[in-house]
Amino acid sequence: MAGKLYGIGVGPGDPELLTLKAVRLIRACPVLAVPGLRKEETAAYQIVAQAIPEISGKECLALDMPMTKDNERLEKSHNKAFEQLRQVMEQGKDIAFLTLGDPCIYSTYLYLHRRAAGAGYETEIINGIPSFCAVSAKLNQGLVEKSQMLHIIPSTYGMEEGLKLSGTRVWMKTGKKLGKLKEKLQAEVSDKKGQQVSMVENCGMKEEHIYRELEEIPEHASYYTLMIVKEQER
Amino acid sequence: MAGKLYGIGVGPGDPELLTLKAVRLIRACPVLAVPGLRKEETAAYQIVAQAIPEISGKECLALDMPMTKDNERLEKSHNKAFEQLRQVMEQGKDIAFLTLGDPCIYSTYLYLHRRAAGAGYETEIINGIPSFCAVSAKLNQGLVEKSQMLHIIPSTYGMEEGLKLSGTRVWMKTGKKLGKLKEKLQAEVSDKKGQQVSMVENCGMKEEHIYRELEEIPEHASYYTLMIVKEQER
Repeated sequence: MAGKLYGIGVGPGDPELLTLKAVRLIRACPVLAVPGLRKEETAAYQIVAQAIPEISGKECLALDMPMTKDNERLEKSHNKAFEQLRQVMEQGKDIAFLTLGDPCIYSTYLYLHRRAAGAGYETEIINGIPSFCAVSAKLNQGLVEKSQMLHIIPSTYGMEEGLKLSGTRVWMKTGKKLGKLKEKLQAEVSDKKGQQVSMVENCGMKEEHIYRELEEIPEHASYYTLMIVKEQER
Repeated sequence: MAGKLYGIGVGPGDPELLTLKAVRLIRACPVLAVPGLRKEETAAYQIVAQAIPEISGKECLALDMPMTKDNERLEKSHNKAFEQLRQVMEQGKDIAFLTLGDPCIYSTYLYLHRRAAGAGYETEIINGIPSFCAVSAKLNQGLVEKSQMLHIIPSTYGMEEGLKLSGTRVWMKTGKKLGKLKEKLQAEVSDKKGQQVSMVENCGMKEEHIYRELEEIPEHASYYTLMIVKEQER
């Protein structure tokens, strides 16, 4: 019988935010897989290694999954990565693919999940804590209450549409476009009274930085940067 | 020294989705608190009791926190609940308040958190898996990829605004307004091709029910019902 593919969310950075289920399945699977050329350099592997040091002895597939908007290159790398998984599953071995945050939310795992499920392999998604929840907890406040809507916006793509939304807005991966987003939000904040802007860079990681005012926010930040814009609580 | 208040997310229902941190702190805190008149009847307590049976021996504050839109009644019950927490914290005891899903997302815990932090007590939010992530995993698919926005919409309040949004929309607590929402979505789906509608009632709980077509969805469903409307993948 062919092996099963588990997409396991390892949470945002703190190894203690792994779930009991993630720990059990990572221990149980004979093979791990991570997105990256060297396992030791992938964030997901580093997080798990802190909670379960014995994974260093496990077979681990390091899958080359570049982040690119070049669709052809993307397709090719996903096909190749799936082929690597397929060979292991055909040996009857279950695989734990480790991914940051939650596998359902903007993860590269989903590309492999779809291929594996489509080819008839057994697949299962194991949830992890999403980064925006962790950032909110780090700020020691909630994201949404009562009638407020929550919007998660990948700011590397459509910024304009996100600017129109009401409720709480989370801007993901703001790094490169931070200067432009800041400028737009400055105009908006002076329009609407009572907006609250916060940002966390590298939440729960070594070079974490917390910003609690729009004015403090720099023009550039690292890839793991997340901004929360909240309406005044009613 | 006064005790500390932990708001601990216990996830959506599966006790294995508790994080290592939640388990450690629930064990470490001498006092638990749950929203509900009898601890055994609260969902959050039931989830934790399956993972950590020994909590049955712990002191536990059962806090009356009715769900109501009557602001005066709400304010009064939150003040009373906070007063109960305050008395325990003044005895130097840490409290683990157990809440379904993640404390940052539509939790009643936030009302007590704000009061405790405002009164100068030490407070900390411990993340849990949000219900919408669990529902997506249950459906064995992702929520969002690439440039898609993710919108979480509390359907007991504004339905009209949510209907206009693009990307993936999650309708929370659709129970009572389900018939109306279904009708609106039927009109919308016939307009836009390739919308995918799924719904999960009581995800991970005893009377779980999964719907994969808009037509299958009934006019009424329980409080713990969540609908996902996805755009065609591009």
